[in-house]
Amino acid sequence: MFGARCLRLVLRHCSSVPCPKRVVSPKVLRVEEALEVKEPTGQDIKVQGWVRSIRSQKDVLFLHINDGSSLESLQVVANPRLETRELTFGSSVEVQGKLTKSPHKRQNVELAAENIRVVGSCDVSTFPLKYKTHHPLDYLRQFPHVRCRSNVLSALLRVRSEATAAIHNFFKDQGYIHIHTPIITSNDCEGAGEVFQVEPAKWERKPEENPHFFNIPAFLTVSGQLHLEVMAGAFSKVFTFGPTFRADNSQSRKHLAEFYMVEAELSFVERLQDIMQVMEDLFKRVTEMVLSRCPHDVELFHRRLAPGQEAKLEQMLKSPFVTMSYTEAIDILKQTHQDFTYKPEWGQDLQSEHEKYLLQHCGETPLFVFNYPYDLKPFYMRDNEDGVHHTVAAVDLLVPGIGELCGGSIREDRPDFLQSRLQRCCETEAVIT
Amino acid sequence: MFGARCLRLVLRHCSSVPCPKRVVSPKVLRVEEALEVKEPTGQDIKVQGWVRSIRSQKDVLFLHINDGSSLESLQVVANPRLETRELTFGSSVEVQGKLTKSPHKRQNVELAAENIRVVGSCDVSTFPLKYKTHHPLDYLRQFPHVRCRSNVLSALLRVRSEATAAIHNFFKDQGYIHIHTPIITSNDCEGAGEVFQVEPAKWERKPEENPHFFNIPAFLTVSGQLHLEVMAGAFSKVFTFGPTFRADNSQSRKHLAEFYMVEAELSFVERLQDIMQVMEDLFKRVTEMVLSRCPHDVELFHRRLAPGQEAKLEQMLKSPFVTMSYTEAIDILKQTHQDFTYKPEWGQDLQSEHEKYLLQHCGETPLFVFNYPYDLKPFYMRDNEDGVHHTVAAVDLLVPGIGELCGGSIREDRPDFLQSRLQRCCETEAVIT
Repeated sequence: MFGARCLRLVLRHCSSVPCPKRVVSPKVLRVEEALEVKEPTGQDIKVQGWVRSIRSQKDVLFLHINDGSSLESLQVVANPRLETRELTFGSSVEVQGKLTKSPHKRQNVELAAENIRVVGSCDVSTFPLKYKTHHPLDYLRQFPHVRCRSNVLSALLRVRSEATAAIHNFFKDQGYIHIHTPIITSNDCEGAGEVFQVEPAKWERKPEENPHFFNIPAFLTVSGQLHLEVMAGAFSKVFTFGPTFRADNSQSRKHLAEFYMVEAELSFVERLQDIMQVMEDLFKRVTEMVLSRCPHDVELFHRRLAPGQEAKLEQMLKSPFVTMSYTEAIDILKQTHQDFTYKPEWGQDLQSEHEKYLLQHCGETPLFVFNYPYDLKPFYMRDNEDGVHHTVAAVDLLVPGIGELCGGSIREDRPDFLQSRLQRCCETEAVIT
Repeated sequence: MFGARCLRLVLRHCSSVPCPKRVVSPKVLRVEEALEVKEPTGQDIKVQGWVRSIRSQKDVLFLHINDGSSLESLQVVANPRLETRELTFGSSVEVQGKLTKSPHKRQNVELAAENIRVVGSCDVSTFPLKYKTHHPLDYLRQFPHVRCRSNVLSALLRVRSEATAAIHNFFKDQGYIHIHTPIITSNDCEGAGEVFQVEPAKWERKPEENPHFFNIPAFLTVSGQLHLEVMAGAFSKVFTFGPTFRADNSQSRKHLAEFYMVEAELSFVERLQDIMQVMEDLFKRVTEMVLSRCPHDVELFHRRLAPGQEAKLEQMLKSPFVTMSYTEAIDILKQTHQDFTYKPEWGQDLQSEHEKYLLQHCGETPLFVFNYPYDLKPFYMRDNEDGVHHTVAAVDLLVPGIGELCGGSIREDRPDFLQSRLQRCCETEAVIT
């Protein structure tokens, strides 16, 4: 490996270890790569992965090998004499052989094994995953060290990995600069209360010394927005995609102590439509990328976890999203005969039941609701100065099955508006969130 | 924007707001895009950014506009009647006009302005950045809200953004799955002591309740390695690129409380050379990408901050890296007549002065040092079982001007070795780091 031989000629004085011999060995392919070979020509390859199934017949031994690169496994066909006691379900193996056309309909290629080496054995009696068993998520939860070998969780993480890459590429292609906003910070973007505080685990200070490691109290970030706003003042278009933290003491599917958030700030934007366009493009491009890069994984979710969503998703990608002002939304909610737990009222937040009704009303397609009441939104959103029904230039994207997926606003850029609003906030001693 | 008109035909019942009129406006180009136009044809464009210089002559007004998309600014040529009191150095503007060939040698294109709108004014008397002034970093440090408009810091963040993208793409192209390893964790990869602990800022528990938010003490991650190792057992090749934290109470250029680290784990790797190959490829590919994507930014660093590095960097990219065992390295250090503060001795860590000498000795090219003493390295590195000079299969990459840039090892995969080593660690009550 790595040209050590020619190196020695140049830097003979540097090294006196014997040079590693260059071994000509078959090309190692990932299972995904092997499965993508359209016209196999019996090329000599090597595949490394875990045994997903083993079926021994009189004349032939069938294995399925999965290495996590795809949901699909590669079928290995071998002479039964290659079977050993250690070759079991769950063991890790290296199979060398010839990649050939498969006579079976279910797969295009298979690997005719010439050698099977068990790299790591597996005691099937104690191994948490069982052959041909559909393990429920509650069961898998107990085994963090092997649960990602299950189809559902490995598909989930492959999709997440693709979505992460698609998000980075979306912004990069449009000229955004990526910023790592600070994780430990003294700034609290959303208003105090539900933040984590950070100090060294072992930390002994004398009474006369400053009690804080950073000299001031330091917290885990709840949003990189304020840092990004500063950066937008130098780079015009910036984004971040990092962990954020909330110390909410509630256990629900919607409250996580640690989660990842995409945030972007754009300078010179004066219309809410331009922000909606970025959100819509981001949603569509990332979704399309995941659908095209992980077709098998997505199909698994459509089959097992979210039946009936496929057509809806396609529809969302095809049509432009719907837009509606908050005031219209309230009018629609008031006109319906549906019973809500929370009565819709101008000036009140939209509840999940309201969002759900609005999405239904619009044909189960993503919906932008814009121009929210001034008193519901944080101080940094731009005042629309629109009289009695006083609103700010904010927008939320509601998505069927989820509710609010993202939100944004035109930032208040008039210093006098900001100052008088901040003063009002301080006077009422209520930081609006 | 965004096809609201055709939408209304489909979903007439949804919306009663007047449709925004579609305004035909000139295309907004980033400065970088405008500068890249090879053959300008007088196309009507708009540029938004900050005024970097303003020079008013009798018949012509020259501006330089920068929007952070590139180090270079775009020259704007205008009729002096377009000058207003608010059009100053530091103000943000929107310039509309025709992109034409520039008669000057220094730039290929310039913008013949037809309209200049000041978006945000700037009081030059109080603005921290001054026209035609080279601000030292110590000065810029005081103004976090505008310092990134300086050439050096904006170049630095553009390079960081490109490097981030290149790192993601490098691993993605080679079939690695990206994993977001947990930031808040109870696992301490590198040994206890210098970690940050996390609890909610407002946290009152009754004495009979568990004192910890997560029921156990929780820390900020010092490394995602152990989580990645688990993932490598399902996906074969995984990587993460996230924030890590150390509560080192020392102020130096090498100790940060928060920094970003690239980590990768590969299953089925049995030779250190394969790990070195990944490190070398990563270094070279990311460096090449930054050099090709940010030529002006890199040139600024070569000119102002690191003169004489350009040729050295090119040499590093062209040649294969040098490899040398730790034992050889100690022999070389012992044979030299150079005086070291720390006497080189087998079994002792390489100090900065030793690394520097070795790099010089090898011709200022990146150097892999491998097979380190067993007692210097953590428990998870593979025992080479090589007798008196007992080593593990670990490798560090030393780079001129930096020192250790990355490290890795073959992981110990034999349960009995791990168990006996862990037992030894517990007995001596010293977790080796």
